[in-house]
Amino acid sequence: MTGPLEKLSTSKVFEGELIKYKFKSAVLGGLDAQFNIFVPLLKNGAKAPLLVYLAGLTCTEDNGAQKGGFFGTAASQGIAILFPDTSPRGAGVPGEDDAWDFGTGAGFYLNATKPEYSKHYNMYSHVTTELPEVLKEANLPIDLSRQSIFGHSMGGHGALVLYLSSQSKQYRSASAFSPIANPSKCPWGEKAFNGYLQGGVDEGAKAYDATELISKAKDPLHILVDYGTGDNFYKQGQLLPENFLKAARTSGYNEVQVRVRSHEDYDHSYYFISTFAGDHIHFHANFLKA
Amino acid sequence: MTGPLEKLSTSKVFEGELIKYKFKSAVLGGLDAQFNIFVPLLKNGAKAPLLVYLAGLTCTEDNGAQKGGFFGTAASQGIAILFPDTSPRGAGVPGEDDAWDFGTGAGFYLNATKPEYSKHYNMYSHVTTELPEVLKEANLPIDLSRQSIFGHSMGGHGALVLYLSSQSKQYRSASAFSPIANPSKCPWGEKAFNGYLQGGVDEGAKAYDATELISKAKDPLHILVDYGTGDNFYKQGQLLPENFLKAARTSGYNEVQVRVRSHEDYDHSYYFISTFAGDHIHFHANFLKA
Repeated sequence: MTGPLEKLSTSKVFEGELIKYKFKSAVLGGLDAQFNIFVPLLKNGAKAPLLVYLAGLTCTEDNGAQKGGFFGTAASQGIAILFPDTSPRGAGVPGEDDAWDFGTGAGFYLNATKPEYSKHYNMYSHVTTELPEVLKEANLPIDLSRQSIFGHSMGGHGALVLYLSSQSKQYRSASAFSPIANPSKCPWGEKAFNGYLQGGVDEGAKAYDATELISKAKDPLHILVDYGTGDNFYKQGQLLPENFLKAARTSGYNEVQVRVRSHEDYDHSYYFISTFAGDHIHFHANFLKA
Repeated sequence: MTGPLEKLSTSKVFEGELIKYKFKSAVLGGLDAQFNIFVPLLKNGAKAPLLVYLAGLTCTEDNGAQKGGFFGTAASQGIAILFPDTSPRGAGVPGEDDAWDFGTGAGFYLNATKPEYSKHYNMYSHVTTELPEVLKEANLPIDLSRQSIFGHSMGGHGALVLYLSSQSKQYRSASAFSPIANPSKCPWGEKAFNGYLQGGVDEGAKAYDATELISKAKDPLHILVDYGTGDNFYKQGQLLPENFLKAARTSGYNEVQVRVRSHEDYDHSYYFISTFAGDHIHFHANFLKA
């Protein structure tokens, strides 16, 4: 059962508020879960649409809030931003803290099917189902019928997958900075799928691989992807945005529907994210405010 | 002797570059010192004026770069930003790591006169003299004849003091977020002055207290100070911006020359800084680009 919502802190930012909450998460096996939410200053009675930001490997709910540079544009556009954590914390599964790219801080935004992980490692449901329910309880001026999603690296993977896989059309648009765009074909993704899923990479490819999912997509899409050519993880073949782009074009999506941009010399850091932060918020505003 | 400059990393941000350097600092007693510098993209042959950012207690050269939200406006204004560290690292003085508000991470931008600290704790000279010399060696497109300075908390104190005390008119303008504006009258400042200075608080008041210095100032000044009324350190009497404002007015400075703004409910965090980051860069641009 999901436990009561506890407000941990509030910081005023760009005339709005960034609030940190904690609650006992049923979906994450009863562990405490934290998230941040930015709520812009709104005119009387107005409600803000919600943009969900998924962070990358090793991150928490704080990295995007502190370093993303999102709030100036979000405030001016009247958009709320939700920052979930990147994994359950303290599940106690043997080995979950042995590596920085698996386990704690690396939940990969999937629902685990291997018995040792399936009780706690359910970040897919945490983000898509549980957090919206919890937000209702927080009684904030947010319109949950208008949601979009974006993210960075593992969180870029998460944003694309949650957008492409949600049958309920939960999100109006998706964007990603330096996403792991074809995880069943890269070391990070293979490790995660083999570690969390009973069916390993095959199961992951079917359920949680943006390139595989867009190959089968038929509905209109609104996707923006940015990556930098100076990104070492891109050079090492962890991101594979070209595979995603090729699959999108093969599926008939043009560059208005699926835009993938390459930026010379930018790296994998939040300096890159902050540079294009305004672009991404404006992109989502087109759909969130339509 | 100051040792050779070593480039540790480069990140592209807002079309410019953030570069991290290391060198052996003579002024800090031969210890390794690090700093970050943002250099905007410039037209052929142009040089950027330099804005120096001094960070607060517990910070390093990274906090302002990662969380300040300065680079969008600095890039559009063509201004370089230097981020020094906040203290020497590894001086080995007994007790320097015992508290978060004294010693390592808390150099207070002064030159220590107590024998045990005077070899290493010379952040005043490090920022005003040594780093500009080192920057010449880096051969970056920066015009050191145009400098301004700003900072946060202890770094806001530093910015005001370095501006008001520099006989050479090194800085054209100064601004501060939540500065320790009257350190000889607050616990943080008393601890620092008694710890680093042979003459204790009396010596600190004369040399390193912005409120004392502005009481004796006669030249035209360009100062902007912002603080939040939700700032716990403000409420605890660590900042005392009213004392600074009162001294400025008593000295005959009007609100065009010394502007002190109070912002309802904002706290001491980088969320506050990022909200007014653009304001501060634009303020300095008036003087740096004149």
